[in-house]
Amino acid sequence: MISVLIIGNGNVAAHLVKAFLKVDTISLTQVSSRKLENIPKAIITILAVSDDAIETVSLKIKNSFVVHTSGSFSMKDLKNTTNKGVFYMLQTFSKEKEVDLYNVPFCLEAERDEDYLLLETLANAIGKKIYSINSEQRKALHVAAVFVNNFTNHLYKIGNDICEEYKVPFEILQPLIQETSEKIKTLSPEKAQTGPAIRKDEETIKNHLDLLHKEQQVIYKLITQSIENGN
Amino acid sequence: MISVLIIGNGNVAAHLVKAFLKVDTISLTQVSSRKLENIPKAIITILAVSDDAIETVSLKIKNSFVVHTSGSFSMKDLKNTTNKGVFYMLQTFSKEKEVDLYNVPFCLEAERDEDYLLLETLANAIGKKIYSINSEQRKALHVAAVFVNNFTNHLYKIGNDICEEYKVPFEILQPLIQETSEKIKTLSPEKAQTGPAIRKDEETIKNHLDLLHKEQQVIYKLITQSIENGN
Repeated sequence: MISVLIIGNGNVAAHLVKAFLKVDTISLTQVSSRKLENIPKAIITILAVSDDAIETVSLKIKNSFVVHTSGSFSMKDLKNTTNKGVFYMLQTFSKEKEVDLYNVPFCLEAERDEDYLLLETLANAIGKKIYSINSEQRKALHVAAVFVNNFTNHLYKIGNDICEEYKVPFEILQPLIQETSEKIKTLSPEKAQTGPAIRKDEETIKNHLDLLHKEQQVIYKLITQSIENGN
Repeated sequence: MISVLIIGNGNVAAHLVKAFLKVDTISLTQVSSRKLENIPKAIITILAVSDDAIETVSLKIKNSFVVHTSGSFSMKDLKNTTNKGVFYMLQTFSKEKEVDLYNVPFCLEAERDEDYLLLETLANAIGKKIYSINSEQRKALHVAAVFVNNFTNHLYKIGNDICEEYKVPFEILQPLIQETSEKIKTLSPEKAQTGPAIRKDEETIKNHLDLLHKEQQVIYKLITQSIENGN
């Protein structure tokens, strides 16, 4: 039996609690980060709090092994004097939407090997994609995630804006969007590239620019150039 | 029975031929665009040729109704003196990969209403997502497709480059990429946006920039600014 304490009550905490409650070999306690007078003992203490609360909350914890769940914070940002680790799930969590943890990558890190094994056991109890990722790699992953998630979504928004302006339903682009994300399961993004930029089809590029607003043009030009240069 | 002549032997032609052959109410002929000495008669003639061949090939056709399959060319770019139209499928086609035409949007246009109905009947025989799209709208769609397909794929490439540099398997990002493309089926891209740019979290943005190469930084800054400005 592994005793787990989850501190926090955001989306990540909610998804973890739901998953751990289904596992017989885990005994779970959850407390809010605002009520830290009497912190229950546990083998693993998971800080599922906002990034800027990691330092202050971890300072108050005496339990033997403390991990945070943040993609952008280093393991060393934990200020407990006991053992440290990270239990980071790379996925967007929202309260309304069910997430299948079997599809979620668990990125684990710990100072001590025996603590890493503990985290691995814990992740294996609720998921199946488990990776050993150190703090530097996790930061890189977090930046990469901004490109493939936030920035990609912004390109969807620009596509949507163009559709609205020309009174075309955005749903027409939906199958292409799905196909684009599916394609790179079997092909590297470099090999999957198509379109006027990679063909250096300057006439089509010029026609496209004519149709765009100034802010859209700047993005179109920069990414086209980046594709042309192979950056 | 509708008689259809397909001119061309590229990917689009191959997918159309395969689909039409399964339909009892369509009689199909296919000829290469290089053998146009004796062009067979047909109710609908489909030019599934490369964009730059549309003008020269269409000049040689006397059949009563001629359509092209291009996203970026206008209906008026057809130079036949008979009736004109467009039969554009918005999807990436590659020869190796099977495409389910039931998921492909058919964007139709014709000069005459009765010709439009013919195209609609044809599209309905092999697909189910059918849209009336004029030449200006189709050009806008084509540009929007570059954003959500080519440019998005380039962001995947940058994500991949970052992963390679830090020796992190790119597959860790795969579930997030899928989720990002799924999310906008139910949420507008504007509402789906998350991350440091929309939160104006300048500290995280600074940390991310520190980790990137110069070319990546330029793209990161520009898209972050565009998200912050709500462009």
